[in-house]
Amino acid sequence: MVLKAAQDSSILPNYWYNIIPDLPEELPPPLLPSGQVAGPEVLEKIFPKELVKQEISNERYIKIPDEVLQHYLQAGRPTPLIRAKNLEKALKTSARIFFKYEGVLPTGSHKFNTAVAQAYYNMKEGVERLCTETGAGQWGSALSLAGSLFGIKIRVYMVRASYLQKPLRRILMETYGAEVYPSPSSQTRVGRKYLEENPNHPGSLGIAISEAIEDVLSSNGLAKYSLGSVLNHVLLHQTVIGMEALKQLESIGIGPEEVSYVVGCVGGGSNFAGLSYPFIPYKLSGKANTVFIAVEPKAVPSMTMGDYRYDYGDSAGLTPMLKMHTLGHDYIPPPIHAGGLRYHGVAPSLSVLVKNGVVKPVAYSQREVFEAGVFFARTQGIVPAPESAHAVKAVIEIARKYVGKNENHVILFNLSGHGLLDLAGYSEYLNGGLQDT
Amino acid sequence: MVLKAAQDSSILPNYWYNIIPDLPEELPPPLLPSGQVAGPEVLEKIFPKELVKQEISNERYIKIPDEVLQHYLQAGRPTPLIRAKNLEKALKTSARIFFKYEGVLPTGSHKFNTAVAQAYYNMKEGVERLCTETGAGQWGSALSLAGSLFGIKIRVYMVRASYLQKPLRRILMETYGAEVYPSPSSQTRVGRKYLEENPNHPGSLGIAISEAIEDVLSSNGLAKYSLGSVLNHVLLHQTVIGMEALKQLESIGIGPEEVSYVVGCVGGGSNFAGLSYPFIPYKLSGKANTVFIAVEPKAVPSMTMGDYRYDYGDSAGLTPMLKMHTLGHDYIPPPIHAGGLRYHGVAPSLSVLVKNGVVKPVAYSQREVFEAGVFFARTQGIVPAPESAHAVKAVIEIARKYVGKNENHVILFNLSGHGLLDLAGYSEYLNGGLQDT
Repeated sequence: MVLKAAQDSSILPNYWYNIIPDLPEELPPPLLPSGQVAGPEVLEKIFPKELVKQEISNERYIKIPDEVLQHYLQAGRPTPLIRAKNLEKALKTSARIFFKYEGVLPTGSHKFNTAVAQAYYNMKEGVERLCTETGAGQWGSALSLAGSLFGIKIRVYMVRASYLQKPLRRILMETYGAEVYPSPSSQTRVGRKYLEENPNHPGSLGIAISEAIEDVLSSNGLAKYSLGSVLNHVLLHQTVIGMEALKQLESIGIGPEEVSYVVGCVGGGSNFAGLSYPFIPYKLSGKANTVFIAVEPKAVPSMTMGDYRYDYGDSAGLTPMLKMHTLGHDYIPPPIHAGGLRYHGVAPSLSVLVKNGVVKPVAYSQREVFEAGVFFARTQGIVPAPESAHAVKAVIEIARKYVGKNENHVILFNLSGHGLLDLAGYSEYLNGGLQDT
Repeated sequence: MVLKAAQDSSILPNYWYNIIPDLPEELPPPLLPSGQVAGPEVLEKIFPKELVKQEISNERYIKIPDEVLQHYLQAGRPTPLIRAKNLEKALKTSARIFFKYEGVLPTGSHKFNTAVAQAYYNMKEGVERLCTETGAGQWGSALSLAGSLFGIKIRVYMVRASYLQKPLRRILMETYGAEVYPSPSSQTRVGRKYLEENPNHPGSLGIAISEAIEDVLSSNGLAKYSLGSVLNHVLLHQTVIGMEALKQLESIGIGPEEVSYVVGCVGGGSNFAGLSYPFIPYKLSGKANTVFIAVEPKAVPSMTMGDYRYDYGDSAGLTPMLKMHTLGHDYIPPPIHAGGLRYHGVAPSLSVLVKNGVVKPVAYSQREVFEAGVFFARTQGIVPAPESAHAVKAVIEIARKYVGKNENHVILFNLSGHGLLDLAGYSEYLNGGLQDT
């Protein structure tokens, strides 16, 4: 076969998939503290109009703008779908394990997929500056790059503990031209309040979100806010992963009805949704019996231990309230290495799917997750990001059920990023010093 | 178009290309200090038989073993060939810029291509342990992974200055299960000698090679040696890059005769050769007018300022002598961030091509190279490894010749790795603290 392009642009989808109209029950709307529904006019204070339209859209497919498609190609999409034959062999499993590898994207994770889309729509509406928060820095670096591509200034509030522990991620954002402040910072009223309580406050994602939103609300309309997970439009953009995976599996003769398991880790839910949502209609319509596994850390058990209720997205209560599985917006997660999973809630759409039994949540502790990460690195070569290693752990557990069997189930998972900037955690694990939270 | 595979295995070549029979003059053989030719029996003391056969082979094409091909696929080959449209636009050039992106491989650089091949042949001959040296750690981490894949123990002598400055690369090697010693080390006679002179000796690649070879020679045949560049068989394995690029360009209707420039950076020469050698026969036969540009740092100007003569590959003079462009085997390069380019010599085959005017060497200083790296990051997204940023600098210079022109020359270069573990250098550059050596 001769390929018709240097890159397989034919694998790139032209549409994102919006799961909202296909959910088993209607998605509860965001609410104001008064109990009123937070309509588009509220969301438009911090987001551009087009993203608000996507946030509340009931269209099943939303066209990916050509310019965004071009940037997907420039960044190396489609990402490879790799059959993990080395891992299968090492586990002696009869299952076939496939993974989408999002770590090939420039900043090393899937976050670019929505960053570039968000920056594009903000650019179209003349936004000059975007504010955001970041934990470990995967999201912040993706948005910094996207801002550089569209000439938008990026200001990142980075959880102080990570700012100090992960200087390379901060440098990466600065290399793309972004401004990075450790949060809590003295830039905002919220930040100053926390700093007064404790000048060395380690910060949290919830606090950093509050700072970014306060910054936007006091910018006289010059700045907008950008979020890396949880919201409908963010998850929507990530479905490029699953849409590609459907086509790639089809190209080797595997239809969605043959996929037995789809697995991803969950912080806010975007990488899990990105891979799994395009497969879910086949389950809901009875065409497939796929088991969807959402993996979270035992230290931040929002799906397995949290309540399903309305809660704020940030610590200071500046966002509308979302109905979701939550540990409470004032929950400060322990300092696990998977910084991207240290969030008190999960996406409302994912919460509905969990509540209805379509998606099954599981939780693992830190040490078993790193053990799985090392096993994967030594067999498949890629050192998974600590976040993605949660998915790897679940996949290994599933694959072990098929040792010495003849059932060649397909297990598909999202390797949402590599861990080359998270090697300190691996070092702690190898030296026996890793806390097993 | 429907793709017939989840990965485009059709792009993967079945053969490596051996340039030796096509060189414009016969390759001078390696010599012993006595002046005698170092025959296969000498090389077999440190390398397995099959690699020695490849080292001295005159076959134009050498079959890639199926097992190695499988590992290329597992690691994500074929790597993407990306047209750098963002960069073209930012430069306002009429030239078309394409790059092979080797940073998608698990350890972030092209080094895996030969690491996995070398580990395979050593495994076939029952070798239990491989010793090697590494500077910045790109090569050491690739061989550590390859060793893990084939169950071979890897011992790495890492230049002490890098061992201390780049702990993440050391952790990466350890994550793959390798033993890593800072060189000079107390493990070898050579190492102890340097440590006696200076207990804080910063080390050099030449010293680390001497240590690895001494380790092998005193192992009673249990261990073999592995080198990441310079030698014929190493460059041979890297030609998978150029062979893929030929097919990928062909798939979009660009034949080798239409490629005006091929560019790569040079330390020992393996990534440059990997991309460029499969294109060179078209130039030698008069079918193409391609200009081949080999880029080196001004701080280590082996091709632009070195002598073409016989010299040792290591500091202690334990290797046979190779005829090559060299700065002298006792040359200690300044501590530039592009650790992979800090080597006193270049591959003998590349030296012949430079001497005969087929390949044109150019040299750039560190600051202009990082400036180019930042420009590339902000337009194309990928932060280049400091080594690869040398190629980027040359490409930008070439592309600028075609600003406002109608000539749509094809410029092809090798982005041999990403710089996510080299961000400290970018930080120095951004803060104005980078030495301009």
